[in-house]
Amino acid sequence: MTPEQLLQGLLHGPAPAQRRAMAKAITLLESTRTDHRAQADELLTAMLPHTGNSFRLGISGVPGVGKSTFIEALGLYLIGQGHRVAVLAVDPSSTVSGGSILGDKTRMELLSVHERAYIRPSPSSGTLGGVAEKTRESVLVCEAAGYDVVIVETVGVGQSETAVANMTDMFVLMQLPNAGDDLQAIKKGVMEIADLVVINKADIDAIAATRAELQITSALQLLGMHGGSGHAHADTTQWHPKVVQLSALLGQGVDSFWVAVSEFKDLQTRNGRFVTRRQQQALSWMWERIDAGLKQNFRAQPHVQTLLPQLSQQVAAGQLAASTAARQLLSAYQAQS
Amino acid sequence: MTPEQLLQGLLHGPAPAQRRAMAKAITLLESTRTDHRAQADELLTAMLPHTGNSFRLGISGVPGVGKSTFIEALGLYLIGQGHRVAVLAVDPSSTVSGGSILGDKTRMELLSVHERAYIRPSPSSGTLGGVAEKTRESVLVCEAAGYDVVIVETVGVGQSETAVANMTDMFVLMQLPNAGDDLQAIKKGVMEIADLVVINKADIDAIAATRAELQITSALQLLGMHGGSGHAHADTTQWHPKVVQLSALLGQGVDSFWVAVSEFKDLQTRNGRFVTRRQQQALSWMWERIDAGLKQNFRAQPHVQTLLPQLSQQVAAGQLAASTAARQLLSAYQAQS
Repeated sequence: MTPEQLLQGLLHGPAPAQRRAMAKAITLLESTRTDHRAQADELLTAMLPHTGNSFRLGISGVPGVGKSTFIEALGLYLIGQGHRVAVLAVDPSSTVSGGSILGDKTRMELLSVHERAYIRPSPSSGTLGGVAEKTRESVLVCEAAGYDVVIVETVGVGQSETAVANMTDMFVLMQLPNAGDDLQAIKKGVMEIADLVVINKADIDAIAATRAELQITSALQLLGMHGGSGHAHADTTQWHPKVVQLSALLGQGVDSFWVAVSEFKDLQTRNGRFVTRRQQQALSWMWERIDAGLKQNFRAQPHVQTLLPQLSQQVAAGQLAASTAARQLLSAYQAQS
Repeated sequence: MTPEQLLQGLLHGPAPAQRRAMAKAITLLESTRTDHRAQADELLTAMLPHTGNSFRLGISGVPGVGKSTFIEALGLYLIGQGHRVAVLAVDPSSTVSGGSILGDKTRMELLSVHERAYIRPSPSSGTLGGVAEKTRESVLVCEAAGYDVVIVETVGVGQSETAVANMTDMFVLMQLPNAGDDLQAIKKGVMEIADLVVINKADIDAIAATRAELQITSALQLLGMHGGSGHAHADTTQWHPKVVQLSALLGQGVDSFWVAVSEFKDLQTRNGRFVTRRQQQALSWMWERIDAGLKQNFRAQPHVQTLLPQLSQQVAAGQLAASTAARQLLSAYQAQS
């Protein structure tokens, strides 16, 4: 199919044809072949006017926190409200195993067979940057096909949370009511980027869940301060991260979760952050791809490839200053390209 | 002075001539003039065989924690033990103000006039990357001049702690015995890179200091775990970060601080981490300079400069996919250079 045919399939196809067009479009965008990349750019450009109309929701949490159960409960709840829900995943470990541990359809039995839901596992090739880029473009495909809630899930591995926060309108961190769990999240800088923290499995131990809620609320307040001056923000035009308890398994709390999401969305729309966040995301995505491209071209250049091993060795051995080696390599690169 | 004359001054000059050579060498390394840069490379290469023999100690802490008082007490203690001590600073804020808030000699009255001490404020131009590069090269100058302990201090601003940890053999975080202080450090990822945490002003409130020591010790244990599995490391061949209480003002605890530093150094030497850490630092410094150079060349290219504003605007407005814009800019760059 040509990019134009794919676009027509996305926009107007009846359900089965639309699903095929989505799968084909995403496969095209994930391809690394040069001729495919030109078609992919054509498709992206044609698709763009039809994108941007969904709410992009990032959900992160360590394995075992109950992400699949929660996303299924949330997805079915949203479909009940008239939404169409797409679920994508960013799983850097899939680039090692060749298969995704996330987005496995068998984990979301009811949601995956629903005609108003679309579930796609993580791309399974390339670096985190590559996986993130492909997922970002898949978000656009889902939007062009009329999905108005796009959920991007990730597991707590490496920098994948930041990547997902940087492609979504709201970033949700799922936690268990365990001591130390919040410290791990603070350590990794994930708590700091969370717009909302969900404490799942609150039904198992209500006291532990409430203690966790208090601890995380206090941590969020401290993290929101600059320099720990002791003054909490009272600015009502800015969002202050919240904590919500729920039980995904029992389906308890999904409605109050969505109320918090809607409050966030309304406030971000009123104060203009919804739009500026998307603009910043698009620009930093552009620079990320430029940086990756510059480095790739540099490493691929024959002169650099010849010099790099010996200069690296001299730098490691303390025989050549790192900055001198960098300048020599940059000169070699500039001279030959 | 030629690079060779500078080197001779550094290596063999009598005290006043050596100080002049150090100041001139550092000024040359800090210069951004192209002809100076060639001389600087010559000096660096000639100097390298005479470098690497110091213990490089990074010290970080927020304003008011008592860094200057501590560094003066430590410096005088080390001079008493026969060492020669250099103090450098990395202060990114100096690039805004044009002057350094660190390394001010009047803050270390006794140390600054001692003939076995050398104190130099932060470079005051360029980005954090530029300031860090210049300070790294100043470390080499101090080593060539025979200083066997080089202290690099930084204030808790932005990413300067990481920059200092990446140029030193050991990274020390100074804390006050305040609640929330440790959380700020965890948040910023500074606690995680600390090899040793010092609780200063322990004389003011012994109970608070001991409580802080317990909290930080427990945080360090949790941070050292992977995934919060609950098992503490029992591996005695690896260093486990420690906490030391002291009072820099009263000079109490400086000796036990140095005992901890010596234990660290011995262990790192035995397990090979001392050498591999320096090798990794040198290589990542090289790549940092390459990345910065690639980006600078890219941004400076006329074709890119022409295209960038309009493409950026289209990306921000959602009219052009970020990855498409990145590819167009990279093609334009490659075509013209």
